[in-house]
Amino acid sequence: MYKIKILTARKHKETWLQEGIDEYTKRLKNSLQLEWVFAKDSLKLEELISKEGSYIALSPDGKPLSSVQFSHFLISSLEQGGSRLVFVIGDAEGLGEKVMKSAKGLISLSPLTFTHQLTRLILLEQLYRAIEISKNSSYHK
Amino acid sequence: MYKIKILTARKHKETWLQEGIDEYTKRLKNSLQLEWVFAKDSLKLEELISKEGSYIALSPDGKPLSSVQFSHFLISSLEQGGSRLVFVIGDAEGLGEKVMKSAKGLISLSPLTFTHQLTRLILLEQLYRAIEISKNSSYHK
Repeated sequence: MYKIKILTARKHKETWLQEGIDEYTKRLKNSLQLEWVFAKDSLKLEELISKEGSYIALSPDGKPLSSVQFSHFLISSLEQGGSRLVFVIGDAEGLGEKVMKSAKGLISLSPLTFTHQLTRLILLEQLYRAIEISKNSSYHK
Repeated sequence: MYKIKILTARKHKETWLQEGIDEYTKRLKNSLQLEWVFAKDSLKLEELISKEGSYIALSPDGKPLSSVQFSHFLISSLEQGGSRLVFVIGDAEGLGEKVMKSAKGLISLSPLTFTHQLTRLILLEQLYRAIEISKNSSYHK
């Protein structure tokens, strides 16, 4: 069982987004255990990030990947990290330079800017897709 | 008032996605009127697309844009098109070569592959963001 921790800004109240996130969490539950850590502000988020030994930061300025490339990246990162991986999602102000520089990897989900809430949902769909790609299932085809 | 028509594959039953789409539709209602056209299969989708004089196709192989670039692209396309614009979203099989070749523009929301349902939500959030950017509001900052 893989374990992925996701550090991000404060949770939003939009129930539809939470339902979408719940759905992918459910679909992932046999392959991947998710842990969400919500920071109450940017300062607290930076503090939490600084405690992580190794993490992948998501940023529109990061490396763009196709879903197949993301799947290979995810699986090899998990294997290198003893089945554990930490992702960091910035808030509206983005991630600070220090956080970006210290990241083990800097990944872009898109050159477009999304709300960090929508980013949470997109990341989860891509995690699910990545696992399915690694299993060679029909989901991604 | 701008008018945007979106041609896409069959609607899904996931209520949380529809709620997300409804939310952005509501936020857009003062600046943009949306018309959704759902095709029951790929063949029907191609038939509907062939009836459009001019359309923008969304594809992971299209041109990647930042949200600011997408905003400029959207507003200038709307102005060139008499305040009207048509977007086309492919289904799991993607859009056919003919559809891509005849498109007035080929845009990528991300090099990642999303379900066409999630693409609908992402497109709507970007349409809202694009309008807010053109108004110079604080949403995108």
